[in-house]
Amino acid sequence: MVAIPKAPAGQKYQPVIVPDGATLPFEMKAGQAVKVFHLVAESVHHQIAPGLDIEAWGYNGRTPGPLLEAVVGDRVRIYVTNKLPEPTTVHWHGVFLPNGMDGVAGLTQPKIPPGKTFKYEFTFTEAGTFMYHPHFDEMTQIAMGMVGMIVVHPKTAPPRRLRDFSLMIHEWKIPIGAARPDSLAMNDFNVLTFNSKAFPGTSPLAAEKGDLVRIRIGNLGPMDHHPIHLHGYAFEVVATDGGPIPKDRRILETTTLVPTGTTRVIEFVADKPGDWAFHCHMTHHAMNQMGHAYPPLIGTDTAGLDSKMRRVVPGYMSMGHTGMGDMYMTDQPDNSISMKPGAGPFGPIEMGGMFTILKVRDQLTEASAAAWYTHPAGTVAGEASAAELAADGIKV
Amino acid sequence: MVAIPKAPAGQKYQPVIVPDGATLPFEMKAGQAVKVFHLVAESVHHQIAPGLDIEAWGYNGRTPGPLLEAVVGDRVRIYVTNKLPEPTTVHWHGVFLPNGMDGVAGLTQPKIPPGKTFKYEFTFTEAGTFMYHPHFDEMTQIAMGMVGMIVVHPKTAPPRRLRDFSLMIHEWKIPIGAARPDSLAMNDFNVLTFNSKAFPGTSPLAAEKGDLVRIRIGNLGPMDHHPIHLHGYAFEVVATDGGPIPKDRRILETTTLVPTGTTRVIEFVADKPGDWAFHCHMTHHAMNQMGHAYPPLIGTDTAGLDSKMRRVVPGYMSMGHTGMGDMYMTDQPDNSISMKPGAGPFGPIEMGGMFTILKVRDQLTEASAAAWYTHPAGTVAGEASAAELAADGIKV
Amino acid sequence: MVAIPKAPAGQKYQPVIVPDGATLPFEMKAGQAVKVFHLVAESVHHQIAPGLDIEAWGYNGRTPGPLLEAVVGDRVRIYVTNKLPEPTTVHWHGVFLPNGMDGVAGLTQPKIPPGKTFKYEFTFTEAGTFMYHPHFDEMTQIAMGMVGMIVVHPKTAPPRRLRDFSLMIHEWKIPIGAARPDSLAMNDFNVLTFNSKAFPGTSPLAAEKGDLVRIRIGNLGPMDHHPIHLHGYAFEVVATDGGPIPKDRRILETTTLVPTGTTRVIEFVADKPGDWAFHCHMTHHAMNQMGHAYPPLIGTDTAGLDSKMRRVVPGYMSMGHTGMGDMYMTDQPDNSISMKPGAGPFGPIEMGGMFTILKVRDQLTEASAAAWYTHPAGTVAGEASAAELAADGIKV
Repeated sequence: MVAIPKAPAGQKYQPVIVPDGATLPFEMKAGQAVKVFHLVAESVHHQIAPGLDIEAWGYNGRTPGPLLEAVVGDRVRIYVTNKLPEPTTVHWHGVFLPNGMDGVAGLTQPKIPPGKTFKYEFTFTEAGTFMYHPHFDEMTQIAMGMVGMIVVHPKTAPPRRLRDFSLMIHEWKIPIGAARPDSLAMNDFNVLTFNSKAFPGTSPLAAEKGDLVRIRIGNLGPMDHHPIHLHGYAFEVVATDGGPIPKDRRILETTTLVPTGTTRVIEFVADKPGDWAFHCHMTHHAMNQMGHAYPPLIGTDTAGLDSKMRRVVPGYMSMGHTGMGDMYMTDQPDNSISMKPGAGPFGPIEMGGMFTILKVRDQLTEASAAAWYTHPAGTVAGEASAAELAADGIKV
Repeated sequence: MVAIPKAPAGQKYQPVIVPDGATLPFEMKAGQAVKVFHLVAESVHHQIAPGLDIEAWGYNGRTPGPLLEAVVGDRVRIYVTNKLPEPTTVHWHGVFLPNGMDGVAGLTQPKIPPGKTFKYEFTFTEAGTFMYHPHFDEMTQIAMGMVGMIVVHPKTAPPRRLRDFSLMIHEWKIPIGAARPDSLAMNDFNVLTFNSKAFPGTSPLAAEKGDLVRIRIGNLGPMDHHPIHLHGYAFEVVATDGGPIPKDRRILETTTLVPTGTTRVIEFVADKPGDWAFHCHMTHHAMNQMGHAYPPLIGTDTAGLDSKMRRVVPGYMSMGHTGMGDMYMTDQPDNSISMKPGAGPFGPIEMGGMFTILKVRDQLTEASAAAWYTHPAGTVAGEASAAELAADGIKV
Repeated sequence: MVAIPKAPAGQKYQPVIVPDGATLPFEMKAGQAVKVFHLVAESVHHQIAPGLDIEAWGYNGRTPGPLLEAVVGDRVRIYVTNKLPEPTTVHWHGVFLPNGMDGVAGLTQPKIPPGKTFKYEFTFTEAGTFMYHPHFDEMTQIAMGMVGMIVVHPKTAPPRRLRDFSLMIHEWKIPIGAARPDSLAMNDFNVLTFNSKAFPGTSPLAAEKGDLVRIRIGNLGPMDHHPIHLHGYAFEVVATDGGPIPKDRRILETTTLVPTGTTRVIEFVADKPGDWAFHCHMTHHAMNQMGHAYPPLIGTDTAGLDSKMRRVVPGYMSMGHTGMGDMYMTDQPDNSISMKPGAGPFGPIEMGGMFTILKVRDQLTEASAAAWYTHPAGTVAGEASAAELAADGIKV
């Protein structure tokens, strides 16, 4: 979790960390000065979190597709093999390239038929954080998971110790018990992911105190603009998919809105140790699948209700007469992650979806990153003693 | 409406005005240099607007909870008593603090059981506009109204005459006739509020010509990003929950998007007298609850339709055959504010929801703020005379 | 398509190009120094795209209403005749004006009854990109198409060769086969438009290599914030409806979020020839109406399914067992544009909705703008030959 990936042979950039993901390998063709990549569009079996396995579409066996990483000035040749049952193309979102390499079926190229391999070739003229996705039947193909990030490094090395992460946001509509995403969904998305993983399936991000942390967030979810929130810190957005934001134009945020069809690169110095939540702030996007078939019954006496209701409505489950906090960890349907919390140092972490944890450690090791944060004495909220209440005149 | 609140004894800051709301009192503990606050999470009976009373959850008898106001450098001790039927916690959104005070159940602290009182203690190291809300079962608890604002003042006084307001945005799904918000709602929110009040229940904001007006807008609504629009003015966003925006990085807007999970502080000089609308620009968010059971019938001859339909569909009401403007002020169901306009100087103001009025007066008094604006002669749009039409060659 | 409109007699500004739209004429009253305009609110018959004709509401026979164009300092008198079956008003969004000219029914003026003509008069004190729309029953009237753009030019000429476009975003809910928009819709909008046209009904934008291109985007759609994406370029947002953004505060984007109730003016130099897609990045907003009555069946063997299903469900159509790409160009219901692609140089362009094409030409002529881009040899993605695959060691 804590190791920074090594650059490929002959490369000098510091590779990006892709939690729960992978980076696309390439071959440097001798004498050609071109990096050759191979993307394969195909069906993939994918686990969103323990308990939820889906049949998605992606690239090279995964969703999101592997990170395509290069250096500004690189000439790249990208073969794309289509193993889907319908045509596809690849659009290189945000990249400046010849019009015929832009990947819009019908407009800039023919579609790639099933079974065929097409060749894209262009030079990355700008450093930055971009994305790739189909531009044929993208409603279906994106909803099924066909998305990927592109990072083009500048030729200069990072100015300081850096932890550089890539997270692709996605939103899915997966009916409870189903394995196929509903590709027609326009709203009510119920599975929300970072790098196609939902909490508690997401791997944490780890940093050492003093590190510069960069998180490259991409959003190719079908419809929503996600407000991504970091606890305990303020950060700057330092780049979009349009280019870098000069230092004197940046503003501080704790939540940045990442519209769909954009990237936002955030940076901050990891100066405050702890286990800090990092999540979408839409309340339904930091939780897992919910059944909405029955109404909430807050404030209702539901004693005996379920057994009576089940006589006429099999499977009836009264929802949250004291709130929904008591609904976690009960029995749930097959292939679903509804109401399944993560394990935490102070009891279950009853979050889900587009939620992960930034672990900042005084000294970052595999052990310290794997462990929960050790709080200094007296810095954890807890029950007030009778003496404290009395001393401060608090009547409860 | 026009008085600026007095600072508590011994305090030098200019308190924030909370329309339709309140500020949380504190005790300064002698010799301890700590301000002691007490938040009580509990059920609250709340009136959204005349005609709509709800059973919500909030703090200290209200929703939003009272404004927590302090000064940068203040040490604060905040007792939180849980009078809800389920556990809760408090997260201090945007505040830099020890990890164990961050309020995420399971991750940074145990949850607060019903009946218990927990103690949070930290120092406000940054001035700014922040928020508080539960981080246990927040889907339910936020939807039920558990949200609040935090203002941390700088040590310096405002540079000029200032009117400083706090408005918390919220969105609710309240089925017509119901008193309990539907806490499972993901969209179709039908009650939209500033400080948990919907127009015509919202109190106007008043300012005197030349005042600097600051409006601190917080959004903890479950899902939506609200575009907040001010008529007649352009304004700057001067801060987010991440910190102040330096003067040379600000831009002018008339509508600013406030993503959920953020604050936006806007400022402008009140140099244009009048009664100016201030509202969310999503059309369904500046109106009140609508029944959507029947289709709109614009352009249809509906004479006799209702009586015929009611033979088979009791309560059928044909919707807007000439538009919906004729639907206001008709009979409506119990405990609802559908189609209830405000009273205005030129007839009913047929708005609702997240809508209020900025009243800018040449001289601000209780009387001038309570009255409608007196327009200079010839500055109100009105019917054109036949002579005017003829002189300008307008054929109608 | 390529001609820049001529300024009206006596005017020096470079008029804005309104694709698929029109500009409102005016009369200059001799000796009065006032420009007199006449807006007529009325029902309009409108074609969204070939195949879909609707009964909308608009101004002067069209939706969006014609562009209102003026110069800073202009005194304007605008007569508004109401030919709708219900009252209306006009609000001049973003314009600084006397409070009584602000157009909010009940609050700043009486509503305009059907059949009446009202007079608005004010001076444009600021250059910029603004909008107009009703502020009475705006839920209905805006949903029906009553929106329009306002451009106020500065007194100075553009600094360089400029192509200056105006595009009004809109979103509609039009049940398949219906001609009346559903004005009660809060989401699930299924017809998405630029200047009330959906692709393939949208006219392309054309520019010559080296032109400064300015696109003034307005959003008065009822509810959504649209992320507008340009392929192949990065651009700057140079102004909002609140005013210009100074050069040293701008950032680069390839997708800019245009919240509802705002304008965003983008600029870039057209230095890359080609046919570049320009569209909303929400996947359902760059396509046309879909039937959602039946579930997608990706991965299912649907042979014989339709004929069996139609015995019990007349009209059943299995959806996309290999994806939805095979669903285009089949039979579709009357008055709908579902699944109707545009014609492209490489086959059908299977996009729709809020989608158009920026055509950048080395030399812009009517002929070059009407034709598809001619790609330099070797710059179009195409099938890789066996020799290429072998040389690069690609196994498929």
